[in-house]
Parts: sequence; structure tokens; C-alpha cells
Amino acid sequence: MVRNLSRGVFQYAQPPRIISYASTVGQKEGDGPFGACFDCVEPDAHFGQDTWEQAESVMQRRTVQLALDKCGLQDSDLSCICAGDLMNQCIGSTYGMRPLEIPLLGIYGACSTMAEGLLLASFLAAGGVGEYTAAVTSSHFSTAERQFRFPLSYGGQRPPTAQWTCTGSGAVILQQPDGIPDGVCVTGGCIGTMVDLGVTDANHMGAAMAPAAADTLVRYFKGTNTAPDTYDAIVTGDLGLIGSELLCDLVMKQGYDISAVHRDCGAMLYDRKTQDTHAGGSGCGCSASMLCGHFLPALQTGAMKQILFAATGALMSPTASQQGESIPGISHLVELRQHCIKPA
Amino acid sequence: MVRNLSRGVFQYAQPPRIISYASTVGQKEGDGPFGACFDCVEPDAHFGQDTWEQAESVMQRRTVQLALDKCGLQDSDLSCICAGDLMNQCIGSTYGMRPLEIPLLGIYGACSTMAEGLLLASFLAAGGVGEYTAAVTSSHFSTAERQFRFPLSYGGQRPPTAQWTCTGSGAVILQQPDGIPDGVCVTGGCIGTMVDLGVTDANHMGAAMAPAAADTLVRYFKGTNTAPDTYDAIVTGDLGLIGSELLCDLVMKQGYDISAVHRDCGAMLYDRKTQDTHAGGSGCGCSASMLCGHFLPALQTGAMKQILFAATGALMSPTASQQGESIPGISHLVELRQHCIKPA
Repeated sequence: MVRNLSRGVFQYAQPPRIISYASTVGQKEGDGPFGACFDCVEPDAHFGQDTWEQAESVMQRRTVQLALDKCGLQDSDLSCICAGDLMNQCIGSTYGMRPLEIPLLGIYGACSTMAEGLLLASFLAAGGVGEYTAAVTSSHFSTAERQFRFPLSYGGQRPPTAQWTCTGSGAVILQQPDGIPDGVCVTGGCIGTMVDLGVTDANHMGAAMAPAAADTLVRYFKGTNTAPDTYDAIVTGDLGLIGSELLCDLVMKQGYDISAVHRDCGAMLYDRKTQDTHAGGSGCGCSASMLCGHFLPALQTGAMKQILFAATGALMSPTASQQGESIPGISHLVELRQHCIKPA
Repeated sequence: MVRNLSRGVFQYAQPPRIISYASTVGQKEGDGPFGACFDCVEPDAHFGQDTWEQAESVMQRRTVQLALDKCGLQDSDLSCICAGDLMNQCIGSTYGMRPLEIPLLGIYGACSTMAEGLLLASFLAAGGVGEYTAAVTSSHFSTAERQFRFPLSYGGQRPPTAQWTCTGSGAVILQQPDGIPDGVCVTGGCIGTMVDLGVTDANHMGAAMAPAAADTLVRYFKGTNTAPDTYDAIVTGDLGLIGSELLCDLVMKQGYDISAVHRDCGAMLYDRKTQDTHAGGSGCGCSASMLCGHFLPALQTGAMKQILFAATGALMSPTASQQGESIPGISHLVELRQHCIKPA
């Protein structure tokens, strides 16, 4: 079903098609340079709920519902959804998806979750588990900061390397291939391997994740025998401004110059000068909302033809950090292509 | 690649083969009625480490290593491993798998994780992502109790409905099908849907999970047009003594009598009379260790020919419980068959 090219690197013989996607973000993300591209900018950080956790759940659910609405499907049409988030025990996905009653595969890849979800949902679609599958993820500034760092009311100082957890969600719906590639397809993937270079600072995640992104990208270039200029964009998740520089240096050392095509969702999401987000954005929702708000539309319109989407995750927990553990990074990747079949 | 039978229910056209498996448990599990069946009973609850979290990581790693050793493979032979656990941000899997450097797909299905992992790892193997894939999970009494309920030193009273989180781990290695079913294969699966009947008591998880197990089993019976007596055993994860009774009642109401073949890992793991475990065992490691210690050997020797393994998970977190949320249950299922090709 897939062409296995090297360890964890594959391409689809018949690629599944992305038939719908949607993005929801908070007000701060809506005020950023890409604010106009998201389907929904929600000014109420509580999304009408009593708690931040409920807010994130509602955001995720609304995003899936919107993706369904956009392609005229119902939740009962989906054979499964791959869902995950940053909260303890992934409750954004649990309570977000509960009312939709879709067979649920819970995943955890920290901020790499959107790429992991796309990878698995595309695999399940290509393998024939029903006609439609989906992937969704979310993050919320207030749930993540309270959980991983300090409660908001503590008012702690954020160092220059810190990233701003995005309030956002992205959802993608895939269709089983029918033999004719058409529209935007998931054409390949790379399952990430953990890389841990010993970073212990939970406020310096870009440095913790960049080596994993480099490992995944170089594995994919080698496995597929492609070079950076094959792609219109090589998109990473949320390395931010500091991690992005590190990534370009790390892949350059292995003979690949990605600097002309590299784009990082965390570095793009906020205005560096006016939005006080230090090293940029982070969180599962950062790359998910940028994928669904900016990159998938660019592929759909033909402005881009072929991109790599390599979301990046820092596999940490407050317990591990308190025990002095370092932060392993991981980066899963999917290749996305516009297969527009036009009449001759 | 799969025959899609109904929503989320499928069978493999060419089933991937289970070529190795291993189990590790703690001393209390080793003292139970199935103690002799596990590969390793570790008397040191700390597994030689400084913290409970490190102990669980080491247990999970050792179990994967043992499964690799038993079939003569190395970590570098695996194209991916599906791994998850109960700890916040799945750090048992993160730090457990870190030294092994295997492409990692993080999953979260609470105590249903072993079935979710087997479902995905078998799908990836059948789809051709390399020759070997794997699934692993773990739980540890001390990490789970501290996280979900009270620190051990608090010495809280446990109600009769409470279950005892198993210290244990199970790992399974699968091989891509070569067209000839042989040995023990994963022949089908059912992706679980969340079911929430409003249980809010974190000490009554059997009741929270039984409706999800019933939903999954009935969906599988209907989708495959089979009946309970098709199977030598219908194994649930960790419903425990109370949840097991509920499950039998719930499926009976839908016309299926599973009482003769139903076995619950949580009800089996400990001696009810002497081990003070109240309603039985729970935790990701409960069904994982019983699968790898008892059921897979029974299939391998031919004592059983065909079983359903439906692990069950309670998708909760302390944060959600404190906010008054109910506990949705989920149950993923895999069908396992002995395909022994004997000369005529």
C-alpha cells in the first residue's frame, strides 16, 4: 500500500486526498500577520465556557464541525479521527470530541501532533478504513501555561527564548484514494524519532526540538532522494525564531540548504515587534492552525504545488522537568502535493 | 488493504503476524494467580531508579528489549513503535523509548492503550511501513496513584469499587504479512468510540468503561457477523469484578451472551481474597501484561485459536475530575487468531 523508502519513510502508491480543513484561533492570533487567513477568530478566550479546559475542548469541537460543514459531511460519515492535545491526558480531545461520537484514536506528539495525526489518518484512509478519516489538534494559551509553567496569575517573567502558546486548533478531513490523484493529497510521510541533545530549559523549546526536525527532514531528503529545492516550502511546527536558525544550521551541516524555502509556523504566527511573544508561537494549535489557515489554502489555489509539513514536539512534562530530565524532541512529517487534473 | 466491514470495523486481507512479545510485572502481580506466566517479575518497585517515573520508564524499555531479544531483532530493525502510558504527557514512553531510537508514534488511550497500539502497529505493518513494527505500554502503581488520586503517603481509604493500578508492561512485535498467514496474527480490529454514561467517580472506573466495551464488542459482532461462541475468549482490559458484570449485562441486553467466554484481565490479575485489591486490577499494564503473559502464549501453543482483545480506557484527568466532569470510556479491539499451517 505504501512504498517503504527507508526506515520510517514512505510514499503512498495511491495518495489519500484532503477534502476539507478548518482553523480556529484566539484574538491574539487573529491580530497577528496571518489573522485574516483563519476561518474563525474567537474574541472570547473562554469560548463561552466556565474553565480554560472547557474552552479548549469547545474550540477543538467547533473546528472539526466547521471542517465537516465545509465539505458537507456529518460526524457519522467519519470512520475515525486522530486527535490529541497538550493537556494532561489529552482532555481537550476527549471532551472536545465526546459529543461528535466519532471512533477516536488518541495520539500524543506534543506540538508535533498535527503531523502525527495527518500521518495516521492518511494511512488509515489509504488502507481503506472507511471512506473518510480526520485529524485534529488544539492548544490554548491558558491551559498550557498553567500546566507546563506557572498559573497566569503568578505573572512570571518570560525569558527571551520563551515561546507563546498559541490558542488555536486545526482539523483536516481525508478521503480514501479512488485511483485518480486530484486536489491536495498526502503523498508521503516520515515517522519521527526522538532526538535529545540534553536541553533542560522548558522555556527554550526551540533548541530542544530543532535537532529532531533536522533528523526527520534529512531522513526524508535521503529516503526520497530529493533536495530542499524540490519543495515550495519546508514548513516546521513551532521552532520559533531561535529554533529555526538552529534547524537551518543543523541541516546545512548535513549538506542541505533549506534557508530559501524554510518557513516556521511559530515564527510566522505573531508580529515579532508588536506582540511581545519573544521567540514566537508554540503549541499543537500553532502549526495546525497555520497549516489549515495558510498552507493548505496555498496548495488548493495552486500558489504552492508541493510542501513538507514537519511539526515539532517537545516530549516533556512538569514532573520530568522537576526531576531534572532533559527534553527529547520529535518531529513527524507529511508531504503534501497539489494533484490538479486539468482537462487537456 | 483491509476489508472495511462497518464503521471503524475491519479485517485484514493479509493479516500481519505477531512474532514476539514480552511482559514485565511488579512483585504484587508476580504473587497473583498468573504470576508464573510473566517473563519477568521485578521485586524492586523502583527498578533500581531514583523516582517512580524513572522506574516505569525502565520497566517499559526492558520489556521492549526483551521482546526484541526473544525474536533475535534489534531496535534498529523496527520501523516504528506505538507507545503510550498513563502518566502526564506519556513520559513512561518518552523516557522509556529514548535510548532505543525507534521511530515513535505516541498514543493515548488510557488503559485501552495496548489495543490501540496493536491496532495501529498492525495497520502500519499490513500497510508496508517496513518489515517490523511494535506496540508497547506500561503502568506503575506508584506513578498512577500519585497522579490520579492521592500520593501514597497520604494513606487514603480505598472504596470497594476501587481498582489496583497494575505495575506492569507488555510489548508486541509484528511482522509485515508475506501472503501466507502463519502463527498468531492480528486478523481484524475495531476503533473504539467514546461512551459516557455520566460516571464521575474516579474510584469506579469499571462502571465508566463497561458501556464502551459493550459498544465495541457489539459493533464487532455485527460488523463481522459473528457471535460470542465464535471465540475461545473475549478478553476485556480492566473492567474489574464490578465492571465485568455490567459488561455482560449490557451486551446481553443487545442479544449477545458473552458470559461463557468473557475474561477480564483486571479480574484475573490478583487474588481477590488475599491481595486486597478490591474490584481488581487496572492500568495500561494490566491488559498488556496479561495479553503478553497469558493470552498470546495460549494462542501460540494452540490452547486457544481465536480471541478478541478489547482493552478499555477511562479518558479522565485529575483536572477534569476536579471540574466535575464525567468520565468517558473507550475500548479498542483487535481480533487475534492462530493460523498454524501444518503439513498435510
